[in-house]
Amino acid sequence: MDFLEPMSLPVSKKREFDPLTDLKDLLQEDLKEIDRVIEQNLKSSVSLIPTLGRHLIYAGGKRLRPLLTIASYRLFNSKGNEAIGLAAAVEFIHTATLLHDDVIDKSKLRRGIPTANELWGNQASVLVGDFLFARSFQLMIQSNNSHVLRILAEASACISEGEVLQLSLCHQLDIKLEDSLKVIEAKTAMLFAAACEVGALMATHQTNATALRVYGQNLGMAFQIVDDILDYSANEVLLGKEIGTDFREGKITLPIVLTYLECSSEEKSFFKRTLVDHIQTPDDFSLALQILQKHNGLTKSYALAKTYGQKAIEALAGLASHPIKELLQSLIEQSLRRTS
Amino acid sequence: MDFLEPMSLPVSKKREFDPLTDLKDLLQEDLKEIDRVIEQNLKSSVSLIPTLGRHLIYAGGKRLRPLLTIASYRLFNSKGNEAIGLAAAVEFIHTATLLHDDVIDKSKLRRGIPTANELWGNQASVLVGDFLFARSFQLMIQSNNSHVLRILAEASACISEGEVLQLSLCHQLDIKLEDSLKVIEAKTAMLFAAACEVGALMATHQTNATALRVYGQNLGMAFQIVDDILDYSANEVLLGKEIGTDFREGKITLPIVLTYLECSSEEKSFFKRTLVDHIQTPDDFSLALQILQKHNGLTKSYALAKTYGQKAIEALAGLASHPIKELLQSLIEQSLRRTS
Repeated sequence: MDFLEPMSLPVSKKREFDPLTDLKDLLQEDLKEIDRVIEQNLKSSVSLIPTLGRHLIYAGGKRLRPLLTIASYRLFNSKGNEAIGLAAAVEFIHTATLLHDDVIDKSKLRRGIPTANELWGNQASVLVGDFLFARSFQLMIQSNNSHVLRILAEASACISEGEVLQLSLCHQLDIKLEDSLKVIEAKTAMLFAAACEVGALMATHQTNATALRVYGQNLGMAFQIVDDILDYSANEVLLGKEIGTDFREGKITLPIVLTYLECSSEEKSFFKRTLVDHIQTPDDFSLALQILQKHNGLTKSYALAKTYGQKAIEALAGLASHPIKELLQSLIEQSLRRTS
Repeated sequence: MDFLEPMSLPVSKKREFDPLTDLKDLLQEDLKEIDRVIEQNLKSSVSLIPTLGRHLIYAGGKRLRPLLTIASYRLFNSKGNEAIGLAAAVEFIHTATLLHDDVIDKSKLRRGIPTANELWGNQASVLVGDFLFARSFQLMIQSNNSHVLRILAEASACISEGEVLQLSLCHQLDIKLEDSLKVIEAKTAMLFAAACEVGALMATHQTNATALRVYGQNLGMAFQIVDDILDYSANEVLLGKEIGTDFREGKITLPIVLTYLECSSEEKSFFKRTLVDHIQTPDDFSLALQILQKHNGLTKSYALAKTYGQKAIEALAGLASHPIKELLQSLIEQSLRRTS
């Protein structure tokens, strides 16, 4: 299958092509500074706040969103430091969202370790999430840029709106493709778009910032769709990626939405039982995979991800040549190939 | 008992002295406009958001915080409308806090009707709360006043910090008076202070705005302490106020903290069983009341509330004479007398 092809690349070849690591290496001084600002802003006289915040922030997250902010800034300004606080703000928004997400989804594990709600309870996770949201606003206000504030505040509202939309749809299987994409856009792509745009805006004019926004938006769409596909990828043992989590939690992700459109009534009953009524047997995940493969649910999802990826690459085409530009474009390819 | 005296005022006399209603009457056009902005900003393509938001916002809330914002503005500007959006932002922060509070406390009733978490579940309440927080930032950004943004963002961070502090202390009875007051300050007084200060800042200079801030801060302290006292007030039947909620939920409020300091070891065991271990019999609330009365826990709390009230009145002393100034000062007296 098309979407599995890049995942079967030998490990040595994957090492050679790693624009994410290259970008992190190139921007390592900035990333250190961002971590310093994050640490500084986790401080509180209430010790549970830094304890819980650090647990998630230092638990092996990719730092992808703050990296996008600082990369978008460095494309146009090699010396200033106006985007450091914004990059930290973006990571705080993301972390707050994860804390609340894990409460909503009753998740027990994230990035291979127990979730904050599992360790400190739902109440602490909700409240520390609120604190991080508020801190993110305190950080972004320091930019003194009203346009930047509007973009990030809108992204924050949009994320919650997307989460509520997803919640409203969670007992439904016949979701329109349009609504499924709207959830992905609101929950993931909007913050990717904002992360890129605000970084660029601190260093350049709106035309360039819009190019970065379009890049981030489409990268976010591709990234989330691949994430949803990976949850059904069959290479679990080979790649060490835990699969089937979305299925077990009853999440109606894009591969399911695209598959359900083609399902027989018997297959529809199967998904209703497993994903809506949450009645599952150990064999159900294999059966779900078979139905997805029969109707090309994963291949179709991957085709959509590639379309978004292509748009992201094109968004940067008009910008002057720059090592960061090339890495951001390669990052799209890597996101489409990624295995975890 | 001293603290019960104002509550036993005859109903007719209470009607005569009602600065809150007088203030609302005086500012009714502004309040209508604030409601319009609130309604406008509850809009979303995701229908659960306005449905859930309206449920709480229109469920008979006092609109005290937005009233403070607009009153503080009108003290210095009789014509402009720069504080309307900020008043709505303040109400959104408050509403978001209530939504999350009710999830944290597993509350089933607020203002006599089922809570949002009871009707739509914890997940929806957390997410719509997040949305309202984000919307509040979108609203306050429109003020284009970086000082105002700093004040409100700091108040938001402080509220969550206070909530986490309260959560950290919830299994403890030997709470320092200082920590108990810190929770009240963070959870209630900071937003009262910010509501007043930002309203004034949109119309006048910092010295006046600081006077309003000090007023709001101390009103908030007095207001919350009276709230905590009312939960133990014995006039349930007479005044229609439901009592004992804090006790049943195991909340360690100021009257308990002040009482516990004086308790015998037997009384301490009683509070440990009822408030920490949450093992209660129907007679326990009466017994709690007896212990509180024996050690003057309510009287001492009320004395503290009066001290804060006095500071609030004094904070406005330097301002020029103005009908709103007089009403704000009378509001302190009413807050100390209030019965619900």
